[in-house]
Order: sequence, then structure tokens, then C-alpha cells
Amino acid sequence: MGVGGCRAAGLGIGAGGGGEGAAVAAGEGYDGRGGDLREVFENLKVKLKEISALQGVQSLLTWDQQVYMPVNGVTARGEQQAVIARVVHAHQTDEELGAYLRPLMAEFEQLRELGFSQLEIASVREAARDYNRTRKKPVELAARAAKLEATGVNTWQKARKEKDFSLFAPVLQEWIDIIKQEAAAVEPISDVYDFCLDKFERGASTKRLDPFFASIKTPLISLVRQIHKTRQGPNRQFLQSKDLFSGTFSLETQKRLARRFSEELGFEFNSGRFDESVHPMTINIMSPSDVRITSRFSETELSSGILATLHETGHGLYEQGRNAQACKEGLPVSRPPGMGMHESQSLLWEKQVGMSAEYWEHYWPIILRSFSSLPHSEFTEFHKVINEIKPSFIRVSADEVSYPLHILLRYEIEKGLLHGSLQVADVPAVWNQKMEEYLGIVPQNDAEGCLQDIHWGIGLFGYFPTYTLGAVYAAMLFQAAEKEIPELRKCIKEGKFKPLREWLREKIHTVGSLYETADELVEKVTGSKLDASCFLNYLSNKYGALYNLSRAEVDAVAIGS
Amino acid sequence: MGVGGCRAAGLGIGAGGGGEGAAVAAGEGYDGRGGDLREVFENLKVKLKEISALQGVQSLLTWDQQVYMPVNGVTARGEQQAVIARVVHAHQTDEELGAYLRPLMAEFEQLRELGFSQLEIASVREAARDYNRTRKKPVELAARAAKLEATGVNTWQKARKEKDFSLFAPVLQEWIDIIKQEAAAVEPISDVYDFCLDKFERGASTKRLDPFFASIKTPLISLVRQIHKTRQGPNRQFLQSKDLFSGTFSLETQKRLARRFSEELGFEFNSGRFDESVHPMTINIMSPSDVRITSRFSETELSSGILATLHETGHGLYEQGRNAQACKEGLPVSRPPGMGMHESQSLLWEKQVGMSAEYWEHYWPIILRSFSSLPHSEFTEFHKVINEIKPSFIRVSADEVSYPLHILLRYEIEKGLLHGSLQVADVPAVWNQKMEEYLGIVPQNDAEGCLQDIHWGIGLFGYFPTYTLGAVYAAMLFQAAEKEIPELRKCIKEGKFKPLREWLREKIHTVGSLYETADELVEKVTGSKLDASCFLNYLSNKYGALYNLSRAEVDAVAIGS
Repeated sequence: MGVGGCRAAGLGIGAGGGGEGAAVAAGEGYDGRGGDLREVFENLKVKLKEISALQGVQSLLTWDQQVYMPVNGVTARGEQQAVIARVVHAHQTDEELGAYLRPLMAEFEQLRELGFSQLEIASVREAARDYNRTRKKPVELAARAAKLEATGVNTWQKARKEKDFSLFAPVLQEWIDIIKQEAAAVEPISDVYDFCLDKFERGASTKRLDPFFASIKTPLISLVRQIHKTRQGPNRQFLQSKDLFSGTFSLETQKRLARRFSEELGFEFNSGRFDESVHPMTINIMSPSDVRITSRFSETELSSGILATLHETGHGLYEQGRNAQACKEGLPVSRPPGMGMHESQSLLWEKQVGMSAEYWEHYWPIILRSFSSLPHSEFTEFHKVINEIKPSFIRVSADEVSYPLHILLRYEIEKGLLHGSLQVADVPAVWNQKMEEYLGIVPQNDAEGCLQDIHWGIGLFGYFPTYTLGAVYAAMLFQAAEKEIPELRKCIKEGKFKPLREWLREKIHTVGSLYETADELVEKVTGSKLDASCFLNYLSNKYGALYNLSRAEVDAVAIGS
Repeated sequence: MGVGGCRAAGLGIGAGGGGEGAAVAAGEGYDGRGGDLREVFENLKVKLKEISALQGVQSLLTWDQQVYMPVNGVTARGEQQAVIARVVHAHQTDEELGAYLRPLMAEFEQLRELGFSQLEIASVREAARDYNRTRKKPVELAARAAKLEATGVNTWQKARKEKDFSLFAPVLQEWIDIIKQEAAAVEPISDVYDFCLDKFERGASTKRLDPFFASIKTPLISLVRQIHKTRQGPNRQFLQSKDLFSGTFSLETQKRLARRFSEELGFEFNSGRFDESVHPMTINIMSPSDVRITSRFSETELSSGILATLHETGHGLYEQGRNAQACKEGLPVSRPPGMGMHESQSLLWEKQVGMSAEYWEHYWPIILRSFSSLPHSEFTEFHKVINEIKPSFIRVSADEVSYPLHILLRYEIEKGLLHGSLQVADVPAVWNQKMEEYLGIVPQNDAEGCLQDIHWGIGLFGYFPTYTLGAVYAAMLFQAAEKEIPELRKCIKEGKFKPLREWLREKIHTVGSLYETADELVEKVTGSKLDASCFLNYLSNKYGALYNLSRAEVDAVAIGS
């Protein structure tokens, strides 16, 4: 699910002064001498390192709360989180930080020739952006948001339980107000939804994403329909022994296997942990040497625990692969360039690798040996089951083909709400109408409709698209890897993941935020900017084969018609 | 072993200005009106609450490091601890805190009639003391101590490994220098060793402890010798089945039992955790609702894991029993009045209860049922084994009778070092000579002699005596409980611990630091100030019976001759 320890703020360089303090901008009024900049940078690093260490503490508080904290500890933990958040904010907006950033940004264009490395220059850029964004956000707005975050979750839970959107509507409306005010204070020249998108995916905007989503909408709706028309489903019979329903998938065995699968992908347990929590997650205690993933397991269902483990292992490998020296110095260049890129790593390992036929050719015999009561069957049967395409109401359990349509629906609603073309009260009706249009099904109530996700309860607008950007980046990266790594699919079939892992480490993990956007990084690695065609090709070929679609049907999806 | 989340600083009220900022003192120059003091106090509470929450964060960082942190996380964790320590220090020495404390201390004697409760008044007293102590400690000295603490442990480990005290001597010398300078800055009128003692046990001084230790020295040396003369040891044969040495004390079974024992004493698992760590410990995440104990288990030895669990459960019950409302508000009155009192709670449950015949009359049959390979025997046999008196070199594995002699030896050496009557280079010789005098044995090398404890490596001087103060308080409190709780021993025999637990909760746990010293609290509860006779009585009666000593021998110990 989520990933902790990632930055949450974005743009800001050169946006001029405003808010509470003077902003840091490129090329503006520095009268110091370039020769001292190295010393200034060293001082900056000390401050950045402190912020990074404090963020590590925040991550640990969150991890502990999800994994090991006793239930009655929740109130005290909330107070600890609140005080640390204030401390972090004070460090992030410390005028001393501005005093170091100002001369560095004044000479930003000259840093290269003054002997600064690319990693250092990118760190200055990122640090200045963070500083400006945080300084410009009005303190009273931040306090209002913090308060609403706490009450918003409770209200959302209550509304979902009672299946009544109207209970939640006031929270949603207040978030919209807060976000509009925040955007006006921080990025007054930006569109409010672009401001939201850019928070999680640098450079993302409706101008970029409208055509992107348009390019996948029709092909995916069509692919879902074609698959539905075949009236084929996987043969689940081989899993429907009485053992399955009497719950014989021993949790201990599943955990042991999941740990093994994670370790064989390359997750390093001396620098990480693997635990259980209600919501699977990855948290980095702000060091590639302390990365913690969690998963969850069901006694009656085998695949979800394993796939969740592969997903979080993908996030975990990214975190463990981050530039160790830059992390050690607290340099923001070590961070991923956005949530889309982070999600691409989890989805690459979960979907491109972990849901491939090759992967299960290797691992299915191990599953069979581990659960002796499981009747004998071919890996191809299991491969079909985990790749079943079947529209459902709930995003988190959606298949690979429907999933982007769940995201598109949310993208359109968020855009409408923030642009004012959609009123809060109309969300349930619009939601249901779009579900019918995109997936051919209509939720029976708001709980399985517009109240299903926590995101809007905690003010996360603009986050959803990163799930689909991640899926597309994953397809693009895997295709590039196939070109560069000899016999990649054969490696997977043999359970050898080092070549792919090392390739990703070199091309993605250690590169961090060297480039300003994930888009730039993807272009460096694959030769192409964000482009859905590779993803559509992947889906149409994979599911065309699994569902025996005709060549014409497959081609219709692949070319995006 | 240790207890986290306890205060480490002590005296300071009314000590006048000095150090970096003006001190807060009672009755000095406040020109405000008493009527506003309630508001001032409310502001003070907000600041104290922040400090308390930050200390909770420190506790969690420590707990995680000991229990779950991946090995490679150690460097990043050190940086997190360092930055949080700086943040806590900044909060503790914040001038705003002084600004609230000053008017409250100026009217300290009038607070009662101004409507402040006793708990509130004690909190003001404690907060002022903390503030003065922390403000007066020179920053550069704190930095030197922090640095030495890190390198000191490494040097100590190396010296112990090589069994060579001379490697450790420079560290010890530097600690002595630092402590002398700290005492001179913080409590210039105090004796340097008294300053150390008072840090961990308010009001403790050589004037108080010299006669105290004198009163137990001869009786305990004599008791150890008398027992040795009997040449009796417990019959270990019943434990010496081949099962024992082939390691059949299943760790899983031991952990399950230990958890049960802890739960039956009353440890609340919804407000706490029970894990394993190399060194058993109790940590309070600064809330009675999140208290974490750990233990450790051996496959070849049954009693140590159980007794360590009872010990930590004793600490844990104290922490869970602290005044919940005061904790919630961060009021320092909720804290124990010293480490001696905390240790009294662990020792009361471990020794007075958990090593009594009554306890094992109830639990031995359960042990027998849990380890089916264990040959049948009476609980009395096991009771004798766990209460064997046998002088050994190592303090942490010492029996109840020898233990205070290990402490006395350290007390005398610390005092000599800080008063200048003992030179660092002479420590090993003096150590060995005292071991021979007190326990009749001489260590073969420094590793099993003066290098065995970590305390001097991390600058903990004055801490050791609290172990023995705890043992004496435990005996005094248990005796008082026996008078007030009908049939207390019968309750224990039946596994009913609620009466004793609730009694301790009311008399000790919830009272916290209401009184300025543990001595005062003990007097309130037992009617007597610190007095070793009750402890000597307990030991002579218990071991007189176990070793069939004559009435004359027992009486000689009991009257302290």
C-alpha cells in the first residue's frame, strides 16, 4: 500500500517571495563570493541531515503504530507524532536553512563550474524547493489541515460504516477549501489541481494527464468488454478442495514462503525487516540500511499474501537501493522523483515479474510442496487464477486491466471538484454513472462506491494518478530491461533476479531525484517519455493469450483504438 | 535490567543563578499577581507535555534498537538519537519554560492556598529542579560526555574482551574529570559523589549511605560465611536429567509460560508488550498505556528466564500503575521518586514473591506439566535451587545475600575515585582485595573483576547503590503489605496477586514523586525511614531455614552484629 519516508512536497524554486519569509530563488541578489559556497553547502548538509534524521523518527513512530504498538498506546502516540511534526516543521522552515540556500541558489547556474557534483546540485534544487513550499504554507492552514486529518478519518470511517456519503460530504468540502487556500498561498499562478498533482508527481498537470488518460480509456474499456464477452473464467476447481475452505493454508507456512520469496528477489534482511500489519506497507527509517516491509496473510486465500509481499518487496528494494552516501548525508537527491516512480518498482516486481508465467513456472512447484494437501496441478492453472480479469467495485482488489479505469474515475472527480465543475453532493451519482460506463457495474451503496478509499478523508488529492503512472512506468522499464538484459525471462524462470535487480538499482534506485521529474528519468532509461502504448501492448498481449482473443481484438487495444 | 523513561536529573531548586541562564528559585523576585498563576501553570503544562512526548520518542528509539532494529540500522539510529537528544535539550532549557516556572516558584509556598493541588505543587517543584539542573550543565561538557559515552562503551568492550583494565583506565579517568566539572557547575556546594548519588536517588549522600552500608556489611559477610560452612548445596539432581543438558526446555514453551506468569501478576497486554532482547529491560513510551518489557530465555536453564520476566514485570507494573492523568498532562509528579523505588518494585515481585516457597507451591506443578520430560519432584526442591547462596564473581548473577556486597564494593570504589583517595590505576587491586574480604573469592582477571559492568563506561557513577536501596525498600514494603493485606501469603499460594498489586498501586505507583524523596514515601507507607534491619531479618529467616542455621546464627545476622 503506502510508502513512508518519501517526500510529500514539490515545486517552488524561483517562485519569488511571499508568505511568511523571503523565498529562496535562483539567480537573485547574492553578493557573497562563490569561493565560500563549498562551506555554505557543508553547513546546509548538516541542517538537511538533521531533518532527514527527524523524518526517520517519524517513520519509526508510524511503523511501530502499525505493527507492534499496544492498542491503548494510540493517544500517547498521537501526541508524540504531533510534537515531532512541529519539530520537523520548525527545522524545515528554519531561517538558517534559508541563509544557506540563498547564496547557493543565487549562483545555481554556476555551481557546476564551481566544482559541485550533479548530485550536489540536484540536492540544492530539491532543498530549495522544499524550503520554499514549506515556508509559504500558512501555519494556520497547516494546523487546520492537521485537525481535519484526525477528525476526517473518523468521519469517513463512520460514513462508510453507515454507507452514507452525506455524513462525509462536509469533510470533503472542507478539504477542498483548505487545498484551494494552500494552492493560492504556495503556487498562486498554478491551477489548483495541477498543484495537487505536482505534489506527488513532479511536473504532472491536467495538460499532461488529460491526453494520457484519454489514450488508455477506450482501449481498456474495450479490453474489459472483450474479455467479459468470452465468458471464460479460470478453472478454480483445482484450488477448491475442501482444504481451501477449511483453511489449511497454514499462516506460518505462508509467512515462511513469503519471506523466502522476498529474500530471493534480493531484499536484504540485515538492512530490513518483514512483519505483518493490517495494511501492507513499506517504511524507510530514512536509511537504506533500515527498510521495513509488511504484508498480511489469509488462511483461506493463498495468492493475496504472496502478491502483497512481492509488491512491498518492490518498494523495499527501491529503498534499500537508494544512494547510500547521499542518504547518509541527508541529501534530498537520494529520494525518489515521485510516487509514480516508487509505485513502478512495486508494480514491476508484483505484476511484470510476480504475475508472469515464468515466475510461477519456477515457484508453483515450491507452493505445491509446501501445502501437501493441495491437489496436483500445473502452474498455468494458478497463473490463470491470479490473472483473472473481472470488474469489481473495489479499487484495491481490482485486476490489472480494470485498475486504471478506477483511477481515471477518481482523476475526473477530483478535477471536477477542484475546478468547481462538480459539486460535492453530486459525487455519489457521478461515481456510479462512471462505474457503469467504464466497468459495466453499479455499486449498491456508497461504502462500495465513493466512500471506499481513505485518501479524501486525509486530504490526499492528486495522489491516485500515481498508481497508474507507476503501472505504465513499470511496463516501460520492464520492456527496456528485456532489451538490455540477455535472456531476462529465462532468468525469471530459473528464479534468478539479480540481473534485473542490479539493472534497476543502477538505472533507477541510486539515481533518485537527480532529474527533476520521473518523466525525465524514464526518458533517460527507456528513450521515451511517459507513453501508454507500451503498457497497452503488454496488457493486450498478455490477456489476449490468456483469454484467447483474436488478433484483431488484441491489435485494437494495442494501437489504442 | 535497566528502566527507560525515568528521569535522570535531580536537585536544583533555589540554588541561585549560574551557568548559562538565570536559575529558577523559590521566593525570589516575582512581581506578578498570584491570580494569574493558574494560567501560567496551564502554559507550563503544555511545555512539560511536549518534553514528555519527546522523551517517549526517545524511549521508542531505544526499545526498537534493542528489540527489532535490523543490525545495519545502527548508524542511522545513532544519528536519530543524537538529533532527538538535541531537540529534547533545547525544549528542556527553553527560556519560555523558565518564564513560566519563575512566577510559580516565586509564590511556591503560597501555591497551596492559591488552590493548587499537591500533585500540581510537586510537579512545579520537580519541573523547576529539572530546569535548573539542565540549564546549569555546560553545553560543551554535555557534548564531551556524549562523545565519551559512545567511545567509552567500545573501549570498555575491547578492554573486557582482552581482560586488560589498563586499556579502559583513560576512559574512567576522563569520566571522573567530566563528572567533577559537571558537579562544580551544577551543585558547587555539594560533595561530588553526593551529587552523583542524588542524581539517581534524591537525597542520597555518603552521610546517609555510609552508616547504611556499615549496617549490612558485617551481617551479610557473616551470613555468607555461615552458609558456606554448612557445605550444603541444593540437590540439583532432579534437574539433571539428560533432558536438561540436551536442551529440552523448549523456548516456545518458556515464552508462553513467562507471558502467562507476567499476565497473572497483572501486567496488562493491551497497554504493553512482552518481547525478547539480549538484556532484559522495561521501557515506558511515556504513557502507562504503552509499557514494554523484555526477557531472555535459555534452552538449558529454566529459572533465569522466568525470574527475569518476574523482575521486569515488577518494573512494568509500576509503569502501568503510574498516575494516568498526570502522565497524560506530562506532569513530572507521575515519575518515580528515584531508581531505588523503581528497583524495589522489580525486586519485590522477583524476590519477595517470585522466589518464595508460596509462589512455587502454586507454579511448580504448572512447570512440571509444561515440560513433560522433567522428572517428578517437589516444589521445595526447585525453591532451594533458585535460592542457592554461592558467592560468584559476577554481580548480575549474584544471589540475594551476596548481591549487596557486590554493591558495597562498587560504592566504596566510586567514592574513593571521586574523592581522590583512590587512583584509577589501583582499581583492579582494590577490587580484588575487597572481593576476597567480602566474598572470599578472587577474580582471575579484570573481565570477571572490575571490567564486568557497563556502568563506568557510560559515566554512570552513583547508580549502583540504588540496586541495594531497592532490595531494602522491597523488604520493607512487603513486610508492611503483610501487615495490611489479610492472608497475603495464602493469596500468593493460590496465585492471587491482585490484593498486593492494588496495594502497591495505591501506596507507591500512583503516588509518583509527590514526596521529594523515596525515603519520605517509604516512611509514609511503612512508618519507618530507610532501615536495613527488616531486610536483614528477611534474609536471615529465609536462609536460616533453607540452610538449617542455628537460632544463634540467625539472630546474629538479624540484629546486625
